[in-house]
Amino acid sequence: MERIEQHASWGGRQEVWQHASSSLGVAMKLGVYLPPAALAGQACPVLYWLSGLTCTEQNFITKAGAQQFAAEHQVILVAPDTSPRGEGVANDEAYDLGQGAGFYLNATQAPWSTHYRMEDYIAHELPALIARHFSVTGKQGIFGHSMGGHGALTLALRHPGLYQSVSAFSPIVAPAQVPWGQKAFAAYLGDDRQAWAAHDAVALLATAAERLPLLVDQGDADDFLASQLQPQLLQAAADATGHPLQLRLQPGYDHSYYFIASFIGEHIAHHARYLK
Amino acid sequence: MERIEQHASWGGRQEVWQHASSSLGVAMKLGVYLPPAALAGQACPVLYWLSGLTCTEQNFITKAGAQQFAAEHQVILVAPDTSPRGEGVANDEAYDLGQGAGFYLNATQAPWSTHYRMEDYIAHELPALIARHFSVTGKQGIFGHSMGGHGALTLALRHPGLYQSVSAFSPIVAPAQVPWGQKAFAAYLGDDRQAWAAHDAVALLATAAERLPLLVDQGDADDFLASQLQPQLLQAAADATGHPLQLRLQPGYDHSYYFIASFIGEHIAHHARYLK
Repeated sequence: MERIEQHASWGGRQEVWQHASSSLGVAMKLGVYLPPAALAGQACPVLYWLSGLTCTEQNFITKAGAQQFAAEHQVILVAPDTSPRGEGVANDEAYDLGQGAGFYLNATQAPWSTHYRMEDYIAHELPALIARHFSVTGKQGIFGHSMGGHGALTLALRHPGLYQSVSAFSPIVAPAQVPWGQKAFAAYLGDDRQAWAAHDAVALLATAAERLPLLVDQGDADDFLASQLQPQLLQAAADATGHPLQLRLQPGYDHSYYFIASFIGEHIAHHARYLK
Repeated sequence: MERIEQHASWGGRQEVWQHASSSLGVAMKLGVYLPPAALAGQACPVLYWLSGLTCTEQNFITKAGAQQFAAEHQVILVAPDTSPRGEGVANDEAYDLGQGAGFYLNATQAPWSTHYRMEDYIAHELPALIARHFSVTGKQGIFGHSMGGHGALTLALRHPGLYQSVSAFSPIVAPAQVPWGQKAFAAYLGDDRQAWAAHDAVALLATAAERLPLLVDQGDADDFLASQLQPQLLQAAADATGHPLQLRLQPGYDHSYYFIASFIGEHIAHHARYLK
């Protein structure tokens, strides 16, 4: 694990690291924000951010303004890339499949199954890696945007006890029912709809073993709202089982990082309550 | 003047506009952040941000996190581009001359003098344009980073009474004495050192007609500190005439937007005190 960037930020330090990932079989970059308490040697909880389609580890760390609030709440922020990358890694010309579009699952279908094991990477390899290199308390939360909101919700629901808190911005809540998810799931998981349901937050809510409260923000001027996101499906699924969900429709906000930056402080404060 | 982007942000709206500039003879883009009070129809003061080498109107609006504080203080933020651009505009392959490197002055030398009139654009055309299209109080401040810090300091010193407040991050305080400025001034202004001094903050301080307080933040881990920035020259010039200067050397900070974002709130609060 090699540090390739570091910048003082809000009394802490924004770093970018590169390491050889055993899950993915390629070199991966990740953003790590260390709050002032971490620089002073104190153990801190870890909050994982999962980015959306086309993003690298850079988008969140340069545009979300999250460091201010991670410093305030003394939380380490880890922002991984959205897929394996590189010459030997399967890809597709479309922005919503292949590199930059890993969908936070382990692909079972060729050619994707060779490297696309983002669930193993995020849920298992990364926490172990972070714990080896930084002083952490053991408590961790997860959040993300769009495809990364899907990742945060499904990883939290699929791994009860792994995360103490979860939230999402504009998540793809029902990938099995919308074009982005259907295209990716068909490629990565094949035609078996049972396999799709195991990575679909709305489907997972029906059998959730744990009642982890969900905080979801969604802009009502988001161009993808009706076609790809459909948060009302998550509301209906939560209502059906009594799963705690705070779904906030934010008037006028779109799908951009301007939206994320406007509410990132409230999300980090939400996580901090569970991670203390 | 045509709006080409708009995003809800911190209860206000981040917009990008394009207009035909009469000073520059080309189409120019600029970021305009309207705080909640502006959207509610109230007149607001205007704070101009001048960006550094290579930047467009996008860098500041996507990376500085300034909207949070502009919303808090109800200030309109205007972030113009750093030079005229386009096929008919003189350019140089280097990053520090030509397009993206206008240095906020009116060039007198061919081929630059045709379009490079950034002082006219920022000091005269832009305030009139903003006043025509938005509801403003008439009070205005100016700040910027690196080449834009030079722009903010020199425009404020060259136009007494035009700005009620000024501040800078990592400014080029003495362009006539450092490589970036010497290269640009030789190209834009020719060999006349008197002409250079008229656009050099350290030189201008000696004869400043107005005692506008200067706030300057500088990271002490900035790679350009010794070679291009040399804030001690500004301190010496301020000391010599008793010009009010608050120069803060920020330990560990570099030249990046991570530095700007960490202190942008304090700068906007500083301006807000003078713009109320």
